[in-house]
Amino acid sequence: MGASLALAERTRGLTAPNPNVGCVIVADNVVVARGWTQAGGRPHAEAMALEQAGARAAGATAYVTLEPCAHVSSRGPACSDLLVAAGVARVVVSHRDPDPRTNGQGIDRLRAAGIVVDTGVREHDAARVMAGFTTRRSHARPFVTLKLALSLDGAAAMADGRSQWITGAEARAHAHIERARHEAILVGRGTWEADRPQLDVRLPGLEQRSPERVVLSSQSIDGVRTIARPAEIAGLTGDHLLIEGGARTAAAFLAADLVDRLLLYRAPVIVGGGRTLPDIGLTDLMHAHGRWRLTDARALGSDRLEVYERG
Amino acid sequence: MGASLALAERTRGLTAPNPNVGCVIVADNVVVARGWTQAGGRPHAEAMALEQAGARAAGATAYVTLEPCAHVSSRGPACSDLLVAAGVARVVVSHRDPDPRTNGQGIDRLRAAGIVVDTGVREHDAARVMAGFTTRRSHARPFVTLKLALSLDGAAAMADGRSQWITGAEARAHAHIERARHEAILVGRGTWEADRPQLDVRLPGLEQRSPERVVLSSQSIDGVRTIARPAEIAGLTGDHLLIEGGARTAAAFLAADLVDRLLLYRAPVIVGGGRTLPDIGLTDLMHAHGRWRLTDARALGSDRLEVYERG
Repeated sequence: MGASLALAERTRGLTAPNPNVGCVIVADNVVVARGWTQAGGRPHAEAMALEQAGARAAGATAYVTLEPCAHVSSRGPACSDLLVAAGVARVVVSHRDPDPRTNGQGIDRLRAAGIVVDTGVREHDAARVMAGFTTRRSHARPFVTLKLALSLDGAAAMADGRSQWITGAEARAHAHIERARHEAILVGRGTWEADRPQLDVRLPGLEQRSPERVVLSSQSIDGVRTIARPAEIAGLTGDHLLIEGGARTAAAFLAADLVDRLLLYRAPVIVGGGRTLPDIGLTDLMHAHGRWRLTDARALGSDRLEVYERG
Repeated sequence: MGASLALAERTRGLTAPNPNVGCVIVADNVVVARGWTQAGGRPHAEAMALEQAGARAAGATAYVTLEPCAHVSSRGPACSDLLVAAGVARVVVSHRDPDPRTNGQGIDRLRAAGIVVDTGVREHDAARVMAGFTTRRSHARPFVTLKLALSLDGAAAMADGRSQWITGAEARAHAHIERARHEAILVGRGTWEADRPQLDVRLPGLEQRSPERVVLSSQSIDGVRTIARPAEIAGLTGDHLLIEGGARTAAAFLAADLVDRLLLYRAPVIVGGGRTLPDIGLTDLMHAHGRWRLTDARALGSDRLEVYERG
């Protein structure tokens, strides 16, 4: 299932409105096929893997991160039907499909055909891998990641706004990988006016994965999409939104409780008197606790990355 | 030598003006004695270990974190003479003694007596363990640790000054251990007036290791020592000073380049608009880089501790 989850990660940010799913088929303890939801949402992971496996799928075990779909679409047959037709002996499922067209029916169809089905394997990890899909389903908005590049004392920039460069080359490269996993990227009007940021992915081979640019602004801006309030992210296409600054924009989304994940790049420098996060409406320190849970921490050159998610 | 360094740590903050030293004596691959500089500076580590070893010291190897002293004092004989008299076969030394009364003469005396002497083993670690001693020698002031307890966005308190509790019980207990390793602890006048902090060590068995309290204040305060400017720390007794707040006091010491080590306790909370570090005189971000080096990072409950030292 770990391998299937890693495959599902490959097209995070490219499959909306479909979930990003991974599938590994194992026959006689050997991996015979690997599939993942392709960009645009089709083919599905199981269809890709079954095509790769061919006749070796008969009697094999399939590990899928999401319950195989039970609905036929104009873009392809139902994956549960494909698994039955291929003669798979066992299917291990991580997460149930919340789509009402499937929601248990995929599993039922497999079992009705005599296939052994196990469920709930690393379900929490699968939910995190396809957080964009589940957030859109449950909250009718994209999954929101807030990126902050800060000094040890929490400064995003010097008092006069200078911020190049608080963090180093490795942290910036990592931030570009993160951009490639988001359909949309948002900055505030101040950052847009001051820097006219490209907000594109400047990594060899990933240039075409640059997200759509969005500016938080009450006035429209030529050539770029704008939203007037944080809540309007509901109308954005794609299931993953990356917020890149500045501090006031970050605070606006935090105050609206519209941040699901924090990417905290921290440089080993002290600025003093710099631009820090403004008010987010906190009235008591007690209310701040239990909100964020550390899910990853690593060194990036001389900087550190910490990832926090809703606790 | 690692064991000797750990022994030397035991009385960090208690041996001034003497260095805190550790000594392990090994005979036939068995540790036969362990010594460390006692509170107040005497007995020395070697004297304590040799007494423990007794006759087993003959032909043994001694591992000492600092070159054995060569000067007789009214408080005891020279350790190099004691090692010779005990018939030790080999002495492994980490750091040379910068004291002009020894500075190589201890090693010379051992070698003259036919003892094999190795030097420079984990010298950098030994320098860090007795940083108070070496800082006093080279800069004529105590080694200064600045403690900061911050939110993810760098707030030491809410805008109105409330800061109880940003960090949790584990981080506060660790901060009390740190207090026990310092002869003096300093806060700014604002913190003193607002909180009247005890600044004592509230850990079972360590209550008597509470440091002297010092307040940064241009006016004298009844019952507590004051200094008017950061540079006046040179006149404090003891070789280790801990600065505990508030943000303005921290900034004053950073601006004066009088901080050797940062203890950064960070809670997984976002405050927004809180009290952050004020100006420290930084004119260009480039000047901020290369100043701090991460030397330790660990989890303390749901908080994180990062230790930075001069890079």
